[in-house]
Amino acid sequence: MPEPLFDKVALVGIGLIGSSLARAVRHGGLATIIAISSRSEKTLARARELGLGDVYEQDAAEAVRDADLVIVSVPVGASGAVAKAIAAGLKPGAIVTDVGSTKASVIAQMQPHLPDSVHFIPGHPIAGTEDSGPDAGFADLFEGRWCILTPLPDTDVDALARLSAFWEGCGAMVDRMDPEHHDMVLAIVSHLPHIIAYNIVGTADDLEAVTKSEVIKYSASGFRDFTRLAASDPTMWRDVCLHNSDAILEMLARFSEDLSALQRAIRWGDGEKLFEMFTRTRAIRRSIIEAGQDIDVPDFGRHALAHPEKP
Amino acid sequence: MPEPLFDKVALVGIGLIGSSLARAVRHGGLATIIAISSRSEKTLARARELGLGDVYEQDAAEAVRDADLVIVSVPVGASGAVAKAIAAGLKPGAIVTDVGSTKASVIAQMQPHLPDSVHFIPGHPIAGTEDSGPDAGFADLFEGRWCILTPLPDTDVDALARLSAFWEGCGAMVDRMDPEHHDMVLAIVSHLPHIIAYNIVGTADDLEAVTKSEVIKYSASGFRDFTRLAASDPTMWRDVCLHNSDAILEMLARFSEDLSALQRAIRWGDGEKLFEMFTRTRAIRRSIIEAGQDIDVPDFGRHALAHPEKP
Repeated sequence: MPEPLFDKVALVGIGLIGSSLARAVRHGGLATIIAISSRSEKTLARARELGLGDVYEQDAAEAVRDADLVIVSVPVGASGAVAKAIAAGLKPGAIVTDVGSTKASVIAQMQPHLPDSVHFIPGHPIAGTEDSGPDAGFADLFEGRWCILTPLPDTDVDALARLSAFWEGCGAMVDRMDPEHHDMVLAIVSHLPHIIAYNIVGTADDLEAVTKSEVIKYSASGFRDFTRLAASDPTMWRDVCLHNSDAILEMLARFSEDLSALQRAIRWGDGEKLFEMFTRTRAIRRSIIEAGQDIDVPDFGRHALAHPEKP
Repeated sequence: MPEPLFDKVALVGIGLIGSSLARAVRHGGLATIIAISSRSEKTLARARELGLGDVYEQDAAEAVRDADLVIVSVPVGASGAVAKAIAAGLKPGAIVTDVGSTKASVIAQMQPHLPDSVHFIPGHPIAGTEDSGPDAGFADLFEGRWCILTPLPDTDVDALARLSAFWEGCGAMVDRMDPEHHDMVLAIVSHLPHIIAYNIVGTADDLEAVTKSEVIKYSASGFRDFTRLAASDPTMWRDVCLHNSDAILEMLARFSEDLSALQRAIRWGDGEKLFEMFTRTRAIRRSIIEAGQDIDVPDFGRHALAHPEKP
């Protein structure tokens, strides 16, 4: 095991991402002490039961005391309150980062509260599942996934290198980006897909002519794919919508425009146009598989996992 | 192995569904002879290489000669032409069925060509993957999935029972439904999800401010889920759109209406409404898993399959 990168890491928030980090830090020997904080007494007790850390504090300011690295993993709407709460406890020279799905809003919320003596480097690991809470995490969640850091103009080069090394220690590949560009990229690759998934599941739920039991029985024909994203944490996604609304509204407008064109092709029976629209999208899936960002097994491997005995 | 249900089964079309049927028939000993027909010489040659059948005919009328069960597995737009082509070769008393994703249109296309001496019972197995062609099929594709039969008013009870037994022999559970109701149910559980997936992947492909490489790199944040459906066979989906347009346009209108409401909640920062919209959708996923229509593993089991060594 190599020398730990940090003496003490403090994890503020211990949900899917926070608890995956706790496990990855332990597994990779990335820190000597893991301090865990959660506002919820129940969640903190569960983290202790799972043995995710070394120190458990309901008071975030206590958890971050003497920490060299502080990682805030809370719904983005809570970032400002957490920054305010931990500010007094932060050690000079500490690195403070986060894992939020929006970056401009997190910076606007956190930066005003943080002392100049700490290195604030916002981040966002592109990894997750539809589950939430301290039980949902696992050590290799970040393996082969990208982590985007959005350093501010005056960011210390050494601190940035140490944080990058930390994410690499968790198995991730590190990218850097402007916060505004991050927010636009994520609006299309993550926020719009989740919103659309929530929406279609809601539309199906409202139908009178098709029963709920029919939707469930026949969901393997496509619908079930959307229910995974639509089972994600509602608090997290409410906050994403509220905190990246400009980019999301822009992407929603483009999506709706394109959908109107498709709808028109269906209404007018324009088979040539439909065929063309349905052809160009195949290449992107191929590229995603080649880039190692999805597995090369039909049906996401669901079938292979459910029927392991047959070829 | 039980007595085969049929002496000779003819499969007209040998893509994902046709070739899965060939394998299931062989595996379950459901017929003595499997005859395979494809209009494409190359596809037929590949089916022969794979050993999917006993007899191979490019001429569908030859393939169906003396068959007790004929299963048409072609894009729904080709149903009429196939019915016309096979009509003269059909044996009196034979059961003729299909696997198309739309039912009213398939009936309207096929029925006028089929002689009164055969039992025409339209069907639709709710199973598949994003792959196509004779290599894509597998014997247990229908295992635990529903197959919907949409018998016509004068359907022979005995023929219906034999066809149901056949699908059960393939591992499926059988349901019966009116063709019109089928088309409406499938419009929401299958057609709309595919159209939306194609659309969002197209929208992402058109962006100038976000590069294709960024879309691919960060696709694990949600987008990649949609690329699977959007990698489905374009001919099949063009035909579905052309042949179930009324029900699809109705569902698209509802979806767009709901999306406008969601968009408005985002624009006006209505967190309470967003939270409510994002909460009610979780229960449906739970029900789908409990009904055995998806696996109970986070991320569709992708992660578990990619990292089999770690817990």
